Amino acid sequence: MRTVDWVERAIRIIDQTRLPAELVSIDIREVDELVVHIRSLAVRGAPALGVAGALGMALAACRSAERGGDLDADLAVAAEKLVGARPTAVNLSWGVEQLASARGGGAGVEELVKAALAIRDADIEINQALSDRGAQLLAGARRVLTHCNAGALACVEFGTALGVIERLHAAAPLEMVYVCETRPLLQGSRLTAWELGRRGIPHRIIVDSAAAGLLLGGEVEAVVVGADRIAANGDVANKVGTVSHALAAGYAGIPFVVAAPESTIDFSTESGAGITIELRDAEEVLALAGHRVASPGSTGWNPAFDVTPAALVTAIVTERRTIDGRADGRDAGGAGSAANPG
Amino acid sequence: MRTVDWVERAIRIIDQTRLPAELVSIDIREVDELVVHIRSLAVRGAPALGVAGALGMALAACRSAERGGDLDADLAVAAEKLVGARPTAVNLSWGVEQLASARGGGAGVEELVKAALAIRDADIEINQALSDRGAQLLAGARRVLTHCNAGALACVEFGTALGVIERLHAAAPLEMVYVCETRPLLQGSRLTAWELGRRGIPHRIIVDSAAAGLLLGGEVEAVVVGADRIAANGDVANKVGTVSHALAAGYAGIPFVVAAPESTIDFSTESGAGITIELRDAEEVLALAGHRVASPGSTGWNPAFDVTPAALVTAIVTERRTIDGRADGRDAGGAGSAANPG
Repeated sequence: MRTVDWVERAIRIIDQTRLPAELVSIDIREVDELVVHIRSLAVRGAPALGVAGALGMALAACRSAERGGDLDADLAVAAEKLVGARPTAVNLSWGVEQLASARGGGAGVEELVKAALAIRDADIEINQALSDRGAQLLAGARRVLTHCNAGALACVEFGTALGVIERLHAAAPLEMVYVCETRPLLQGSRLTAWELGRRGIPHRIIVDSAAAGLLLGGEVEAVVVGADRIAANGDVANKVGTVSHALAAGYAGIPFVVAAPESTIDFSTESGAGITIELRDAEEVLALAGHRVASPGSTGWNPAFDVTPAALVTAIVTERRTIDGRADGRDAGGAGSAANPG
Repeated sequence: MRTVDWVERAIRIIDQTRLPAELVSIDIREVDELVVHIRSLAVRGAPALGVAGALGMALAACRSAERGGDLDADLAVAAEKLVGARPTAVNLSWGVEQLASARGGGAGVEELVKAALAIRDADIEINQALSDRGAQLLAGARRVLTHCNAGALACVEFGTALGVIERLHAAAPLEMVYVCETRPLLQGSRLTAWELGRRGIPHRIIVDSAAAGLLLGGEVEAVVVGADRIAANGDVANKVGTVSHALAAGYAGIPFVVAAPESTIDFSTESGAGITIELRDAEEVLALAGHRVASPGSTGWNPAFDVTPAALVTAIVTERRTIDGRADGRDAGGAGSAANPG
């Protein structure tokens, strides 16, 4: 079962808001419905959003043709709605733009569908390639730690950071994957733990703040995470909390590896300082499972991402290269420039 | 209202499991009840546990006398139960030992009660003294971050780390206190935010993993935390997550200060490696507000504390000295030995 797919001229997604309690899929035939499901995080994860953006444009093209609409006008409306669904999600607009550009090049409805399906299929191959590369880099590590969800549920059917972990486990059984729960929305304990459980990979869920103690205590041999955006200098924006794992891995002298497709590298952003951090609703911090837990009258601050300086990254693995970073855990040697074609 | 007090030959505590929803006190007349409330964290915080340990021994002495029991035998049983309630909390066993030692010196029941009350009263003065010292050290810092709760609720009626923050605010209004929510039991968002709100100190609650990004982003000027146990070499055991803030503060080049009474220093433990970390029930991680949120079948790992190496600590302030640590944020110069009387 794929996280996001194309079935009978509709988009089929796994509804991630209902995981891990139940595995339910939704068939989406209209762009407006897709926008609702992107906003609710029913479909999420940088690579999956890229594919959803492209398939969303294909969906708009199909519906336009069935209704005898004006294809260009309908695609323009769809593009605006999709990009606006999560304005900071670079991959979403990337997927939309791939299709808009195909249309600009003269593609008709069937060619647009083909272009979207090619993006879907490429996601799988790309992630398998970068996962192989990451697993080679970390060969021998038997106890690893990851943050948030960079698994199949963040992609089409094969993950990035969790893809590396899956490949490591296939090469020789892992002893333990430490899964950071990933407050506030718990993508680690809800989604990553679910994926690892289905694959029979031993894992334990920890609160995010327990990671540093485990790393300094020598319990973990490598950290591997995904990325939401990588600046040209190798600074990595990823789920809030990532940089604390990078700092601890550096102090402990163990590898901190980022697994992400080339499309995550934003060559137009020079460094992490240029990345705008999405601020989400403070209620996500102040309430648990719908119940207010924080002191009444107190407010929250809820940045969704943080930036890990390139100097703290051991390596970034993409589908076609390994961008080397710090020489060892304690030396902040500086990651190689991501913009350098390596 | 005091966090822990002695009223009519019973211990009165604020039930912190019910904060911030309601402010309720519990009167405790038996050691077994006290152990239950220590385990449930109804009373918690290193200094408060020290006082609770001493008052618990006074309680045992009073009940023993009322029942015509063997005082020494009853105190020995009580001591074992109390110390076993929270193994990492050195203050708890310290408070117990103070009373055991008074009994060894020939104290009768009334003298034991007096000794316990002296420990209660000293806690207030000690924390005011160390808070003054900490505030002098951090004078000028207007945006600070703290973790867990080292406030009045962790002591008798005046805090340690939050005492420093209160004194800083009294000297010149603080712009912002960033309060880490402190998963899994949320002592930050429930207790610290409640205390700051009552004192009118501006604050924002963040998920624990957001701290590193704020520190590296230059938003915070100092980190101040309490301690559960300090080894002779200056390594600090405190609430899980503390070491990640120390690492981030070090990288950001801002002070990381530990505020704790001398009684927190465990001269019999050479370094952090000798500190046993309490493992708590994994359900605290897997459930939120009583609802299972983690993937079914997944397990958790729930260390209650971590150890911050002395090299990452700028200074430890106690009621009678400042133990200097790293010269600046990036140099791991090593904290002075806590065993050195300074």
